[in-house]
Amino acid sequence: MAKKRDPADQKPVGFPLATDWRGKVTEFDPRATPGFEGKKADGKKLLAARDSALDELQERLYAAHHGHQEGRSVLLIVQGMDTSGKGGIMRHVVGGVDPQGVDIAAFKAPTPAEKRHDFLWRIRKHTPGPGMIGVFDRSHYEDVLIHRVHGMTDAKEIRSRYAAINAFERELTDAGTVIVKVMLHISRQEQGERLMERLERPDKHWKFDPGDVDERAYWDDYMDAYTRALRATSTARAPWTVVPADRKWYARIAVQQLLLNALTGIDPQWPEADFDVEEQIGRLRATMD
Amino acid sequence: MAKKRDPADQKPVGFPLATDWRGKVTEFDPRATPGFEGKKADGKKLLAARDSALDELQERLYAAHHGHQEGRSVLLIVQGMDTSGKGGIMRHVVGGVDPQGVDIAAFKAPTPAEKRHDFLWRIRKHTPGPGMIGVFDRSHYEDVLIHRVHGMTDAKEIRSRYAAINAFERELTDAGTVIVKVMLHISRQEQGERLMERLERPDKHWKFDPGDVDERAYWDDYMDAYTRALRATSTARAPWTVVPADRKWYARIAVQQLLLNALTGIDPQWPEADFDVEEQIGRLRATMD
Repeated sequence: MAKKRDPADQKPVGFPLATDWRGKVTEFDPRATPGFEGKKADGKKLLAARDSALDELQERLYAAHHGHQEGRSVLLIVQGMDTSGKGGIMRHVVGGVDPQGVDIAAFKAPTPAEKRHDFLWRIRKHTPGPGMIGVFDRSHYEDVLIHRVHGMTDAKEIRSRYAAINAFERELTDAGTVIVKVMLHISRQEQGERLMERLERPDKHWKFDPGDVDERAYWDDYMDAYTRALRATSTARAPWTVVPADRKWYARIAVQQLLLNALTGIDPQWPEADFDVEEQIGRLRATMD
Repeated sequence: MAKKRDPADQKPVGFPLATDWRGKVTEFDPRATPGFEGKKADGKKLLAARDSALDELQERLYAAHHGHQEGRSVLLIVQGMDTSGKGGIMRHVVGGVDPQGVDIAAFKAPTPAEKRHDFLWRIRKHTPGPGMIGVFDRSHYEDVLIHRVHGMTDAKEIRSRYAAINAFERELTDAGTVIVKVMLHISRQEQGERLMERLERPDKHWKFDPGDVDERAYWDDYMDAYTRALRATSTARAPWTVVPADRKWYARIAVQQLLLNALTGIDPQWPEADFDVEEQIGRLRATMD
């Protein structure tokens, strides 16, 4: 029997899309575990084991860049169909780092006030400042996904929105933000089962909306809208990753890995003291009894 | 030997102040562990063990009240001298619940724009909406603490601010917010040691400010300002608790317990479905292969 690979050496990174990708999202298996040879228990162990690495990198990012006019930051954009596990990512991956260094923004249907503005207006208010990890639970991509599926915006305007999104994301990366874009990719079958669980458990009823069932009729249209959006907006600076999400544990270690990669790429260093350490030790000692 | 009390039965709640309290904060021992018979290891175990209870209560609060025009919420206000462990409370207590249900606001020295407004102006923007747990890392109390110590505001105006604070907090509790006010109480000696650690570890230099040493000269004035502020603003609706904080592990289990008490007092229930569950199960089943 071949020796099992050490989970610590594995890189579960989902399916990263090349900038010239012209496939379809439906070509990816929602139950796959790319980059990871292991089962659920191994995945859970890996998530816990890497928590402290993520935590330290986040603290370094904060220490090195927070409070400055300019600096590095990370923006994690999480998209996915209803029940694809966005909340679990927030709780189990993002929740593992110091909450003081994270800004989560959940974008619901826009309010009447928000609708009076360009679709990126409400998004811009939540881009991460230097040293921060920003997280979008849904995002400006809704404006090219649900809008296409339900014809709320015509095809020409959708194309112009792709261009606006790419320009917007280029602004962010120019300013020092590393953008991680994730599609949590579940199967229609799995969604049915997760919705059924919400109906069968009284403590989950509050998460259910009858409209979620209606939306299932548009499944194929949504997959097509994702395919088009991901083709148009997977750029070298802000590439998309399709993360198989029928196994929640896999989606979580994959998003964690993507965040780790983003932070490792920034490689934030503890800042040098801007004071004379020995002198301050002397001053402090003089105040101690 | 007496049987050790089960940690699960203990209630580490610090020193709650009565509304007619006329003592001094320096009368409380910063190394005490009121309500808890146990050592560091027991405390750490208790913190981890109660994490899931806190997590469930937070989810219930969110489920029952979030998205409504009115509803219940919790506001945790954390005050304390430099190095008293505010950040550790954010990370190890608040960090244990779903980040989607928590809003942390850290109040630094006000900006010029903020200074042009009433001192409560910037605070009001961060009060928790229905279903949320709001957390203040420092707060409007700085405006009666550092302001008194450094004479930035005269005694008469400070008294009028106490009244404004009590009126403001009454507004919040009238609207359904449970307010938990905590003073993390450390000794001057312990602060000296914690500052020394920041100077001795390069990965902590970024947390050190030479001004922190200067402020130690005003220790007694700060204790006096705390005493006065806590006497004036420990009301029946928004009482203060002095939490001994020389032992970080104790401060954390105490604040966790206070949050648990606040949420248990609200006793949020999973909301009833506002749809016909059986009907929706039938509709969903019809969409499944």
